[in-house]
Amino acid sequence: MPITVKALQKTGPDAPFRVTTIERREVGEHDVLIDIRAAGICHSDIHTIRNEWGEAHFPLTVGHEIAGVVEAVGSQVTAWKPGDRVGVGCLVNSCGECSECAAGFEQNCADKVGTYNSQDVDGTVTQGGYAEKVVVNDRFVCRIPDSLGFDVAAPLLCAGITSYSPLARWGVGPGSAVAVLGLGGLGHMGVQIARAMGAEVTVLSRSLRKEETARELGASRVLATTDEGFFSTHRGEFDFILNTISADIPVNRYLGLLKPRGVMAVVGLPPERQSLSFGALVGGGKVLTGSNIGGIAETQEMLDFCAEHGIGSWVERIGVDEADAAYDRVVDGEVLFRFVIDTATFAGAEAV
Amino acid sequence: MPITVKALQKTGPDAPFRVTTIERREVGEHDVLIDIRAAGICHSDIHTIRNEWGEAHFPLTVGHEIAGVVEAVGSQVTAWKPGDRVGVGCLVNSCGECSECAAGFEQNCADKVGTYNSQDVDGTVTQGGYAEKVVVNDRFVCRIPDSLGFDVAAPLLCAGITSYSPLARWGVGPGSAVAVLGLGGLGHMGVQIARAMGAEVTVLSRSLRKEETARELGASRVLATTDEGFFSTHRGEFDFILNTISADIPVNRYLGLLKPRGVMAVVGLPPERQSLSFGALVGGGKVLTGSNIGGIAETQEMLDFCAEHGIGSWVERIGVDEADAAYDRVVDGEVLFRFVIDTATFAGAEAV
Repeated sequence: MPITVKALQKTGPDAPFRVTTIERREVGEHDVLIDIRAAGICHSDIHTIRNEWGEAHFPLTVGHEIAGVVEAVGSQVTAWKPGDRVGVGCLVNSCGECSECAAGFEQNCADKVGTYNSQDVDGTVTQGGYAEKVVVNDRFVCRIPDSLGFDVAAPLLCAGITSYSPLARWGVGPGSAVAVLGLGGLGHMGVQIARAMGAEVTVLSRSLRKEETARELGASRVLATTDEGFFSTHRGEFDFILNTISADIPVNRYLGLLKPRGVMAVVGLPPERQSLSFGALVGGGKVLTGSNIGGIAETQEMLDFCAEHGIGSWVERIGVDEADAAYDRVVDGEVLFRFVIDTATFAGAEAV
Repeated sequence: MPITVKALQKTGPDAPFRVTTIERREVGEHDVLIDIRAAGICHSDIHTIRNEWGEAHFPLTVGHEIAGVVEAVGSQVTAWKPGDRVGVGCLVNSCGECSECAAGFEQNCADKVGTYNSQDVDGTVTQGGYAEKVVVNDRFVCRIPDSLGFDVAAPLLCAGITSYSPLARWGVGPGSAVAVLGLGGLGHMGVQIARAMGAEVTVLSRSLRKEETARELGASRVLATTDEGFFSTHRGEFDFILNTISADIPVNRYLGLLKPRGVMAVVGLPPERQSLSFGALVGGGKVLTGSNIGGIAETQEMLDFCAEHGIGSWVERIGVDEADAAYDRVVDGEVLFRFVIDTATFAGAEAV
């Protein structure tokens, strides 16, 4: 029997959120039913449901930063049991057989299924985590360590892994000079994770407005990129730049901030093409790379890392009736640093 | 006493080459005097002496692909003795003390001295290898294995190391699917070296004109990038692309040819900025990087590798009176694959 649950839904890109009911599929042999406790609001949710990244399939529920408790499992599920504290991120399925799946890079599987607005294996459109419950394949569930609260943990499933994966891939560690470009949902995780890895972290921002906060997160410096001579003064200082912003940047000048063999990893997607001089890469053998979330095993590794180092997302908790206002504040950059929907507030909301 | 030697010189960007005499410095304590046997013609020589890369200091002798025999050494030189077969590439000095020098990346030293058109430690402008002899610091001399002829070896000092270094850095080996973009001086070394490393090599070129030659060099395939649907047909095929061309390319489309985590290494310098969508790097975590020659120890490693695998540059030998004509043919892409000046022909040339 499908399961009816309350969810936040939009019927079109300009419609407000409404609380309604949606159907989750019956728990299959390899499925896990999760009682959602917290759902993070990611900027991708906004881009998607406002049709800024192409066509969204309405009516739609978004949300891919999900934390909760296992309520039931399918007959073939051995890894999970009711009561387990778990999380789900941007993926809810993949083929499980291709070389990318085999290597733990499910995010690169040609047949991956996104947590929302994606075609599920049964042909329906997946519905995300702004809801009371969700049913997902057991391979796409991660364990949330006991020391991490649900609200603190939820954004780790997207913002956390997106920041962690490139830092881990490129060997950031003790002695690394890391710059984090942009201090928002991704950047505030990047600072904490890089610091926990042992790096010396500098936040690069247009202004020094968030300096105190950056230091609380673990940054040793905040530099304003608008300062006169910034790019020449800080030339060749960094081993690694995590670029979390989605705006156009002067790529060549940022590459000049890197030491020889330094790496700039991009996790934001500016809408326009960027202008790059190959000479900025050739001199010093520098690296420009991108990164897209992470695989499931690596997501678990990241959750365990965060628990071990006592870090998590800085969150502002909201009720289901506050999602529209929260979206506006995310777009305006007015949140430190993630809104998390307290799904307990569905109880008091009337579904239409 | 300075040493007077015959050399090919230009007095201005549009002047023809002339045979004249230039002075080499007296052999200092740490210097090596080399009797040059072969000097390769690199496209960089042409760009430099035609003022296409900024101001050249005339009168100028270029050439940074030098092979010859040690004729004399300074009192403090222990590594070299008269009769040694040796080569010199793009560098003739560096500080020897900075972290880049210490790590074997002399090409990144802030105080490096280029083989020509560079300010030497005594303030003079360095003069390159189109000459009978050269005096260089002993740390910038490499051994040419006996099995490599001087003419075959000379271009390895620039074209060889420029191709070898990125292939080695990024772990190309057995099972790697490598594409070499452009089949000229750099590309023909890239094909041979990648093949010798065990990779399956595909040459990407505008046409199939050089197909037979590419196969002789070790390529298993040649693909014409102008074929309709080329970029979709070959999407996701390669682990590594060595981009040796200096023209504008559709970067995003080439990145699409890479597998997840694939690497495109650029060793050519198109004059214009390229247009890059960060999304082409983010999806699949791809890498765009550059590479600039290599350090001295790595250059020796490359020479030994080439000798071990019986590979070298394909060369056309010319006399000192043929340099102007050779330049035109290089610019027109009409050489397979490197001109090498037979410096024995200085003997019959009258110096002006």
